[in-house]
Amino acid sequence: MAEKLTVGGLLFPRFELLDIFGPLELFGMLPDRVEIVMLGSDVGPVISAQGPSAVIEQTLSATKHVDVLLVPGGVGTRALMDDNVFLEHLRRLHATTSFTASICTGAALLAKAGLLDGRQATTNKIAFDFPVRHGPKTTWLKRARWVRDGNIYTASGVSAGMDMALALIAEVFDRPTALFAAEQAEYVWNEDADHDPFAID
Amino acid sequence: MAEKLTVGGLLFPRFELLDIFGPLELFGMLPDRVEIVMLGSDVGPVISAQGPSAVIEQTLSATKHVDVLLVPGGVGTRALMDDNVFLEHLRRLHATTSFTASICTGAALLAKAGLLDGRQATTNKIAFDFPVRHGPKTTWLKRARWVRDGNIYTASGVSAGMDMALALIAEVFDRPTALFAAEQAEYVWNEDADHDPFAID
Repeated sequence: MAEKLTVGGLLFPRFELLDIFGPLELFGMLPDRVEIVMLGSDVGPVISAQGPSAVIEQTLSATKHVDVLLVPGGVGTRALMDDNVFLEHLRRLHATTSFTASICTGAALLAKAGLLDGRQATTNKIAFDFPVRHGPKTTWLKRARWVRDGNIYTASGVSAGMDMALALIAEVFDRPTALFAAEQAEYVWNEDADHDPFAID
Repeated sequence: MAEKLTVGGLLFPRFELLDIFGPLELFGMLPDRVEIVMLGSDVGPVISAQGPSAVIEQTLSATKHVDVLLVPGGVGTRALMDDNVFLEHLRRLHATTSFTASICTGAALLAKAGLLDGRQATTNKIAFDFPVRHGPKTTWLKRARWVRDGNIYTASGVSAGMDMALALIAEVFDRPTALFAAEQAEYVWNEDADHDPFAID
């Protein structure tokens, strides 16, 4: 591939830290092939659910396209359920991606934007009901570390985003590249999407 | 404990994203008992090794004390090896902590500050030589997910910081609290410091 893969990391107030920075650490292990850009409603600092702030580099309005869009969860997703401008940007941007991927309750944002209609998906097993309520046309899987349906990936809670990110890297590039990223981060990859230690019944 | 545990997350240009935000995600699962503050040389945004920026909230100069100090690694550690003001702040602040903990090549900073003299420690297994070079009076372990020697913890590469953070949470609070934090993050805790899938010989 001549050009770098553009990975857009979505930020909003009270995003979950590890949801976004776990996957970005792994994509970040491939600096010759990947470019990361942090997206959100307004340029500048934005506070996480845990307290530390990160920085939005580019507005959603100004973003025409990313190859991979990463959508974290966190308590801040709840305030976005009625933000139609935000949800419209999500729909528009998703239409330009090769892959869109949510982590944890980020799935509620994709569901509310209608992007999970008619698809299989998963989400945080502890806050399962919240995304499910906003995705009545989605088949929600209670046992899945992550789910890929078409060009949408959804991961289970927080840490599951790293296992999913490596699967995404394996799909976009190849498995040796994913194994390289995992090893560089000394990360023990749960490579089996169906192996879910936090499944609910 | 009446007051919250203050956890200081150290930031500097080109810090490694997951080194700091993995552990902080887990400490952040305990908002009633933990307060996180991001520390560094200057207040404001600071770029990570992977590209995204985070925000320093309080200068090292203005920081009198933290209970737990987390020191990430990343390519940016190399520029700090000759920064005597930074290293002196590290020494001064460490003298006030209950625990100081490095992740990955953050161990090079502790070593260079002299804090690992006469202690056992570990670090990133891929960039092992760099911290070792700066810690001639340290016993460096090639097989350890993390090491605790007195009140200093050192973790192996990147992801190992999360396993170490949970051990630290178990020590400061108790094991059920650590298991709670892990489960909330759907994180499979490698609870055995001696189990190191990335050991070198």
